[in-house]
Amino acid sequence: MISTNEYFGGNVKSLGYTSSTGKSTIGVMEAGEYEFGTSTHETMIVVEGAMTVKLPGDSKWTTYKTGESYQIDANKKFLVKVSGQTSYLCQYK
Amino acid sequence: MISTNEYFGGNVKSLGYTSSTGKSTIGVMEAGEYEFGTSTHETMIVVEGAMTVKLPGDSKWTTYKTGESYQIDANKKFLVKVSGQTSYLCQYK
Repeated sequence: MISTNEYFGGNVKSLGYTSSTGKSTIGVMEAGEYEFGTSTHETMIVVEGAMTVKLPGDSKWTTYKTGESYQIDANKKFLVKVSGQTSYLCQYK
Repeated sequence: MISTNEYFGGNVKSLGYTSSTGKSTIGVMEAGEYEFGTSTHETMIVVEGAMTVKLPGDSKWTTYKTGESYQIDANKKFLVKVSGQTSYLCQYK
């Protein structure tokens, strides 16, 4: 089954599925700033757009563009800013 | 606004948005065979999984894997078979 998820009042929406490489979601964020929490290790890949991210323990923000990716350990919080609708792939591994 | 779309009784779901490169959807297909129709030119990119596709005018099926893409002209129909949950990016350009 393809799960449908909404966060932050519908400003972030995602679809959950399982591929041959494991569980993933693809999603879209509206322009804004968001704090996400992880329950497992996550690999985030920007599909279209750009995300400016403050990773756990980092004091500075880093921008990731289309095709670029970053990793977050389990049970961490991280901040994401986007300036326009941005799509992503999140792999739970 | 991020649009939420369901086709084929929820076996295909997508999220619509507009990035700096134009209108796009990201979506997921359940295992199955589907006929899609285009109203504009579309570029389909496999995000995770594989799609076996019969393009308009083609007599044979071609398989596209993660990261691979194909194009469909406006106002055409094409067939897609997937053997497991597969995600895609569709750019309307």
